[in-house]
Amino acid sequence: MDNKEQCRKLANRIYELDEKVYKTSGSGLGKTFTGEKARVLDDLTMLIVSNPQGHLLRSELALIGNMARSIRNKEARHDLLVEYNDILEEIANLPMSFGSVDIVDKDLADMNSSILSKKFSEKDHLVICISRSHGSAGTDIGFALAEALHINYYDESVLNQILDRRDAKEFGADAAKVSDFKRYHGLSKKDASFFRQSALICELAKEEDMIVMGRAADVVLTGQHIPHISIYITAPFAIRVRRMMELKNLDLKQAINLVRKMDHKHQDYYHSFTGKRWGDAINYDLCINSACYGIDESVELIGRLINRQAKLVHRNKDTK
Amino acid sequence: MDNKEQCRKLANRIYELDEKVYKTSGSGLGKTFTGEKARVLDDLTMLIVSNPQGHLLRSELALIGNMARSIRNKEARHDLLVEYNDILEEIANLPMSFGSVDIVDKDLADMNSSILSKKFSEKDHLVICISRSHGSAGTDIGFALAEALHINYYDESVLNQILDRRDAKEFGADAAKVSDFKRYHGLSKKDASFFRQSALICELAKEEDMIVMGRAADVVLTGQHIPHISIYITAPFAIRVRRMMELKNLDLKQAINLVRKMDHKHQDYYHSFTGKRWGDAINYDLCINSACYGIDESVELIGRLINRQAKLVHRNKDTK
Repeated sequence: MDNKEQCRKLANRIYELDEKVYKTSGSGLGKTFTGEKARVLDDLTMLIVSNPQGHLLRSELALIGNMARSIRNKEARHDLLVEYNDILEEIANLPMSFGSVDIVDKDLADMNSSILSKKFSEKDHLVICISRSHGSAGTDIGFALAEALHINYYDESVLNQILDRRDAKEFGADAAKVSDFKRYHGLSKKDASFFRQSALICELAKEEDMIVMGRAADVVLTGQHIPHISIYITAPFAIRVRRMMELKNLDLKQAINLVRKMDHKHQDYYHSFTGKRWGDAINYDLCINSACYGIDESVELIGRLINRQAKLVHRNKDTK
Repeated sequence: MDNKEQCRKLANRIYELDEKVYKTSGSGLGKTFTGEKARVLDDLTMLIVSNPQGHLLRSELALIGNMARSIRNKEARHDLLVEYNDILEEIANLPMSFGSVDIVDKDLADMNSSILSKKFSEKDHLVICISRSHGSAGTDIGFALAEALHINYYDESVLNQILDRRDAKEFGADAAKVSDFKRYHGLSKKDASFFRQSALICELAKEEDMIVMGRAADVVLTGQHIPHISIYITAPFAIRVRRMMELKNLDLKQAINLVRKMDHKHQDYYHSFTGKRWGDAINYDLCINSACYGIDESVELIGRLINRQAKLVHRNKDTK
C-alpha cells in the first residue's frame, strides 16, 4: 500500500469516527467535518499526506477526541476512544508525523541526570545545581532539599572552607602568609577563586550525590561532561523584595536596593564566567517560580521531578 | 530559658557534634571549628542569636553534615546524623530561622493547582496552560500530554472552531454574512478574538480537566481566579532552528527567519494582552528546557510534577 492510499484510508477512518462520535455524544456543536463527504475526504487525505505533523490535523483530531471524552455512556465512550487512539497511533507511525522530529539535543540530554529513561554508569551521581535570584528562598530550598534527600550540600562558603583547609594542610601554619602569587598562579583573585572552586565541584561531583548552590556549577560541570541537573529558582521581584523586608527588617527602599544589587552581582558573575545570560530559562533544565510553591512544596516538587521522595525532616512549623 | 541561653546550649551541641564527627570520620580536613573553644562558642552563640537564617550558620552546619555522611561505619553515621537532624530541627524552631520567612505568595499559590498539599474544592479541575517558543516541540508535548492524561486539548484552532460553530448555531446559515460589528461588538477583530477565546477558556476550565496551548491562558485564568498550572516550554535557539530545518525541510536562513518571526509574534501577542514579558521565567510556575528532555520525557516529567502518571500511549517508535 503506498503512502497516499494509506492516508486516504486513514482519512476515511477519521471521517467515520467523527460521525459516530457526533451521533453518540449528540453534541450541540455538530460534526467536526461538515460539507460534502467526497471533498472533505480529499482535503483530509491531502492534509495527512502533506503535513501530518502540522497543528491543523492535530486540532481536527483534538476536536473529535474532546467530543468523544464528553460521552456519558461509559461503554460507548471507551469503544470510540480506542478507535481514536488507534488512529493517533497510525498517524504517529507515518513518516514526518506528530513528534517524529524530537527536540532532544544529544549533548544536553547526555548531561541531564534527571532523564529517568537513560541509564548512567554506576559511577554517576545525582548532582543538582541550583541557581537562584536573591530573596527567592532558593538557598532555603537547596538546603532543605539536601537534608530531605540525605545528600551533601555545598555553597560558596562551604567550598571555600574546604579549599582553605587544604591550603592549611599543604602550606602548614604559614598558610596565611603564603604569597598570593603562589596560591593563585598569577591569576586575579576572583578568577583563581572561580577556577579552584570549579575544580573542587568537579572532583566532588565525581564522588558523591550532592547539591551545589550557584558558582555557575551547571556550566562548569557541562564543560567537564559530568551529568547533573540544573535548576533555576526565582520569584517575582516584588515578592522577593517583600520577603527581604520581613527577613532582614528593611524598609521598602533598602530591600529594593539590596535585591537589585545582589541580582546584578549574580548576573555579572554568571555572565563573566559563562558568557550566558543568568536567569534565562534556556540555560537551565528547569525553572521554578518559588512564589507559586513556597519552600516545602518546592522541595517536594524537585523530589518528584527527579523521581525521589524528598522527605522533609524539619521545618514542620511552616507546613501546617 | 531565654533565647540567648537556648542559643548557647545549641552552640555547645553543635561544637560537640563537630568534635565527634571529626573523631569518627578522621577527615583529613580537620574540625569545622578551630581555635580556642570559649571564643568559638561565643562567636557561634552570637551567630545563632543574631542571624539564624543566614547562610554562614547554614554553611558551618553543612560542613559538619557532609563530613558525617562520609562516615563509613553505618551505626556511628546514623547516630551522628540523628543528632545533626535534631540540631537542625531546633534551629528551625528558633524565631527568624531557616525557612521561617517563606517565599510563597498567597495569591499566586491560591491559583496553582499543582500544589498537592492544597485542598481544592471538587469543582476545581486540572488545567494546564502551556506556552512555548517556536520549534521547542511544546505543541507535541502538550498534545501527547493530553492523550497521556486522557484530558481535553485546546489550541487556537480548536477554540476558534468551537466559537465558529456556536456562531453558526446562533446566526444560522447566514453566519458568514453577519456583520463583523454585531459579532465583535465594535472591537478590533484581534481584540474581539482574544476576548471570545478568553471567555471560552474560562468556561471550559470551570467544567473539565484540560490542556490549553498559548492564548495567554495563564494570565486570563489568573485574572478570573481559576486555578491552573502554567508551564513554559523552550529550548536553545540553535536547537529549535535545527529542528525546524528537519521538520519543514528548510535551509538554515529560512529556519532562522521562521523561528525568529514566530517568537516575535508570540512575544507581541503575550505582551499586548498581558503587559508581561513572554518567556520570562518569573511569569510561569515552571519552565522546561525541552532540549534536555525530549518529547516523551517532558511528558513524563510534567506527569510526575502534577503527581499523575502520564502514560504514553503512542509514539513508541521514538522511545526505544
